[in-house]
Amino acid sequence: MSALRFDDWDLPSAAPQANATVDAEKQAKTEVDRSILQAAPALAPINAADKRIVNGKADINQLAPFKYPWAWEFFLKANRNHWTPLEIGMAQDVHDYHHKLSAAERHVFENVLAYLTTSDILAMRNIGLAVMEKMSAPELQIYQARQVYEEALHTWTYQHCIESIGLDQQEIYNRYRVVPEIHGKIALANRRLEKVLRSDFDLEDRANLHEFALSYFFFAVIFEGCWFYNGFTPVFALQRRGLMKGAAEQLQYIMRDEVLHCAFGIRVIRELLIEENLTLDPATLRELWDEAEAAETAYAGYILREPVLGYNAELHVAQFRFIANRRARQVGVAEPFPGAENVLPWLDEQANLRKEKNFFETRVTEYQTGGALAWE
Amino acid sequence: MSALRFDDWDLPSAAPQANATVDAEKQAKTEVDRSILQAAPALAPINAADKRIVNGKADINQLAPFKYPWAWEFFLKANRNHWTPLEIGMAQDVHDYHHKLSAAERHVFENVLAYLTTSDILAMRNIGLAVMEKMSAPELQIYQARQVYEEALHTWTYQHCIESIGLDQQEIYNRYRVVPEIHGKIALANRRLEKVLRSDFDLEDRANLHEFALSYFFFAVIFEGCWFYNGFTPVFALQRRGLMKGAAEQLQYIMRDEVLHCAFGIRVIRELLIEENLTLDPATLRELWDEAEAAETAYAGYILREPVLGYNAELHVAQFRFIANRRARQVGVAEPFPGAENVLPWLDEQANLRKEKNFFETRVTEYQTGGALAWE
Repeated sequence: MSALRFDDWDLPSAAPQANATVDAEKQAKTEVDRSILQAAPALAPINAADKRIVNGKADINQLAPFKYPWAWEFFLKANRNHWTPLEIGMAQDVHDYHHKLSAAERHVFENVLAYLTTSDILAMRNIGLAVMEKMSAPELQIYQARQVYEEALHTWTYQHCIESIGLDQQEIYNRYRVVPEIHGKIALANRRLEKVLRSDFDLEDRANLHEFALSYFFFAVIFEGCWFYNGFTPVFALQRRGLMKGAAEQLQYIMRDEVLHCAFGIRVIRELLIEENLTLDPATLRELWDEAEAAETAYAGYILREPVLGYNAELHVAQFRFIANRRARQVGVAEPFPGAENVLPWLDEQANLRKEKNFFETRVTEYQTGGALAWE
Repeated sequence: MSALRFDDWDLPSAAPQANATVDAEKQAKTEVDRSILQAAPALAPINAADKRIVNGKADINQLAPFKYPWAWEFFLKANRNHWTPLEIGMAQDVHDYHHKLSAAERHVFENVLAYLTTSDILAMRNIGLAVMEKMSAPELQIYQARQVYEEALHTWTYQHCIESIGLDQQEIYNRYRVVPEIHGKIALANRRLEKVLRSDFDLEDRANLHEFALSYFFFAVIFEGCWFYNGFTPVFALQRRGLMKGAAEQLQYIMRDEVLHCAFGIRVIRELLIEENLTLDPATLRELWDEAEAAETAYAGYILREPVLGYNAELHVAQFRFIANRRARQVGVAEPFPGAENVLPWLDEQANLRKEKNFFETRVTEYQTGGALAWE
């Protein structure tokens, strides 16, 4: 990568752009309308009680006092979890992929990556475009600013894995459009996103508010809390056999972020339902779960069309149902799949691994010297 | 701060929320409409040439191939610049503020913080709400996801300074509403933001496209590139005399981020003008500069109503004009204030300081152990 120097942009000898030349006459100074620069009305500081999850009237530009101190804690926690994909070695993975994985295992690995790359760009766009603007308390927007960035960091991670291993980027990125079983999950998510991105969408309207709550539930609870949580498992299954350990470690860090996103989302939903005295329609929720299960079943059938040692499509879907029940309990709605069992007890164990490794001691030299930036 | 554990949210014994109870009948599984899960049309991978800054038609979910590889470099560079406010000691600043600063110096310091806190929340909202959605190439959105986060990180930094020194948060955050000279700058920015947030805004329309380019120019070039760049100077003036060195170091890191934001923005504007064959109307630009200068002059008059050693309002405004000319040259438009001189040569010197300190070796213990997160 060529070095980026800010003073690349300090170009005193560059000719002005042809379409932005000086018009000497028009350059004469103008009379400034000073009305906008005049006194603001003397307003009292905001009250925390006036803040709301959505539809709040309190000044959005004032961080304190907090109404949702837990949101600020999520922000601080997320910052303490900071990591980047460059800190994890991928050399052994390159060897594993080309020399140790079976064709069925390569199929699993590539398609999980293809699904995740598209999913995380979508997750970023959902928070950035459909959610953040609707949150009317700055402490909520601030956690979501971090969340938007983390989704971008995950996209970088997949890109880093794809590049390290030498896969065809263009083909991997396009796979979600040509493989129906990957496309199905993305299409369900896009449908939710489109519903709340309509320009006439108005959260003062109860039907729209319910639509927004459902969409938020879908992304936080199902998309991030079930599909993502469960989506890393096939690669963890390889990791348990000593394969693709670098990629798996990357995914463990992503999973830690996603668990926080899901936890934050569940907290927001619970508060939103109380603040707005809103009920999630059980019949609509039922449809949501059933669609999610059908999409996950099709997806599992494709990525695991041949089982790999110790892991198959049935286990994948059974685990989805078990996680879905947990998320439902966390939100306080009915379990969608009563009686689903924990068929992969090692998954939570894998997730629970405390990351004792201190990244900041082991980080690579290039990263350490990142502070030496030449700027103007 | 209480420890945040994800399993706080795993509440198996919690009663379901009253407004989200189970309706046994409705819980019966539904018939899933499988049409959305069916085959996607077989589409070819995207071509980089089809990407556009705005109004692009290429699939937004596919990162590679890049059309704007420089945007990806900005993203990587920004990640290498990562820092957090907890890494910089503030103990001496607490002493300085309460025992060494004169009343005039405290006035400068507090009002600079009050202006910056509000400005950075607004900067975050501008990118998150008004800009990111309009960028139609994922590599542009991804840098802006990092940018949105950095603005939130800056807000955290001001909050950390305010809290460390023991200022009244509520009063500081509200100051922009009751001090006309601070309010003026924020009001100008809000007016720009509102113009491009209209629900009927359409970038296929040439007049709207010009409005968007102007707004983007305002935020990247004036708001971040001039007002922010110049806005840290009063605190650097204290730093040069050995005062408030912790806060000043925080601002140096923020300034490094802001310089990258401005550089990225200028690059986007230049490409946008070429791609869209668009000219920024010189008369409108003239008004923009003159309003910005009037607002900066009023602001400088307030924060520096008494000069502090080696620094006064006239120098502040003269420096604004000098920086404005530099930014104009960088974009390729006419210098707004021909002949403006570099009255504070030490500012660029201060900004040019290479940060040789390796944060990752000196970071505090709390941050180092942040990796040990208990999760479900």
